[in-house]
Amino acid sequence: MSRVPTGVSAFPLTPLRDDAFDRPAFERVVARLAAAEVDTISVLGSTGSYAYLSRAERREVVEAAVAAADGVPVSVGIGALRTSQVQALAEEAQEAGADGVLLAPMSYQALSDDEVFGLFDDVTRGLSVPLTVYDNPGTTHFTFTTELVARVAALPNVAAIKIPPPAPDRVEPRIREIRAVIPQNVAIGISGDSTAASALLAGCDLWHSVIGGVLPEAAIDIARAARSGDADAALAESDRLRGFWQLFAEHGSLRVTAAIAEHLGLVAADSLPKPIRGLPAPARQQVADALSLLD
Amino acid sequence: MSRVPTGVSAFPLTPLRDDAFDRPAFERVVARLAAAEVDTISVLGSTGSYAYLSRAERREVVEAAVAAADGVPVSVGIGALRTSQVQALAEEAQEAGADGVLLAPMSYQALSDDEVFGLFDDVTRGLSVPLTVYDNPGTTHFTFTTELVARVAALPNVAAIKIPPPAPDRVEPRIREIRAVIPQNVAIGISGDSTAASALLAGCDLWHSVIGGVLPEAAIDIARAARSGDADAALAESDRLRGFWQLFAEHGSLRVTAAIAEHLGLVAADSLPKPIRGLPAPARQQVADALSLLD
Repeated sequence: MSRVPTGVSAFPLTPLRDDAFDRPAFERVVARLAAAEVDTISVLGSTGSYAYLSRAERREVVEAAVAAADGVPVSVGIGALRTSQVQALAEEAQEAGADGVLLAPMSYQALSDDEVFGLFDDVTRGLSVPLTVYDNPGTTHFTFTTELVARVAALPNVAAIKIPPPAPDRVEPRIREIRAVIPQNVAIGISGDSTAASALLAGCDLWHSVIGGVLPEAAIDIARAARSGDADAALAESDRLRGFWQLFAEHGSLRVTAAIAEHLGLVAADSLPKPIRGLPAPARQQVADALSLLD
Repeated sequence: MSRVPTGVSAFPLTPLRDDAFDRPAFERVVARLAAAEVDTISVLGSTGSYAYLSRAERREVVEAAVAAADGVPVSVGIGALRTSQVQALAEEAQEAGADGVLLAPMSYQALSDDEVFGLFDDVTRGLSVPLTVYDNPGTTHFTFTTELVARVAALPNVAAIKIPPPAPDRVEPRIREIRAVIPQNVAIGISGDSTAASALLAGCDLWHSVIGGVLPEAAIDIARAARSGDADAALAESDRLRGFWQLFAEHGSLRVTAAIAEHLGLVAADSLPKPIRGLPAPARQQVADALSLLD
């Protein structure tokens, strides 16, 4: 992983089968991303259900990913509620061959800015691989201020900040705002797939992509067009996927991505950790329709 | 535990020492609650940091609580993000001697009403002790509708619903609203200590009390006055603690309760799971002042 990561970081699902890690299905999903030549494979992100898995399951996921990634760099989500758990997960991920780690400040009790800074300070000290700061307020219920982004980005081993999607008219100003306060060698990554094309056009270095975990070519086409400065092509490629963006907004990207993977035969039915349920039948039909439009 | 639990359910801290469960300190805290004759001891609630502890730590907490409770019924928080983890924790709590369990619908991905109902449906089926539904939107980020409260309260083994504090002018109507949709033998418990006196006066059966985990006599005095219908005495007793209620609002009840326990010498310094930090020095002085006013 270069010090300024760029391109598409694809976030695969971690499929379950009868409530156990479905390693063969996961290896199929990861091998497909490697074959499509995504820039990074980010396992155990929110889409990879890291928060729902035991430490032993997470270790096995990392081992399977490194084995199936065929040399593509593997980044690993190490989030947990307690600092010492995060540190143990970081150790295990590195032992299992992770090329980088991602850390979201999960919360149960609401955390202060100083507490979140303390978490990143404690964890980055012990790392020998780069870390991506994973700002995902929809799941962590913690919102970074720009000032805290600056403090955390200055810590050793921080390679990238993954930002949540700004409002459509705030994409450029928000990226400028962050760029102004972080070191030059720290990348800005966009999450929120429907905003990715415009964020890459506005200067984001990489795209933390949910759809890229299951439809990697579609994500790569958007990112290539955007990074080459072809705004019309990038926005047109993104617009081809608008059926998925609408379903993401309605049902959450995790449930929709699992339905795509199930429809494509990559994973078995009921691949999500309960109590999370898969999509209802009418939405599954919409997924099938959106997939057939891509062909 | 009777089928309609009443009175004070005290929520002890789970103190740590050098990031490990401080069993001797915990046993001191629990024995103190038993000596004060609280009605129930609810371990591994939010105040008991359940979300931050490993399964092995949680098992040891239950064993220590049952041993130290001297016959007072022990209820155990079994919350986790994945249904199968909750079921495993329920099994272990019962094996270790729990008289009841509490379940909050923790979330990382936002949950639908049907998903939360499914969680309670799956978990209550396997229980042989009563369950308290733990509605704590500030930490779980899930909000129960009244309709969902009614559906969940009708499940087998549900003994109580713990409700978050309504707005001051909504205490009576909210309790009437819930009472109207749940079975007669299901208790309504209030959480949010500053609202407890008025909620008990308005007909709540029990108080899930944070302050009761560290100052049990103060909580018992409020509850006794309220349950005997002496509104003036109950509100006056609660008003004596208003210094704590203000600190709870400002810093979160967990950090304040830990500071009280540290000030009283019940637990060691830095007893909370990192990244959560203890109170800053000025707030610790306010805690000391509020404690000295009680004498």
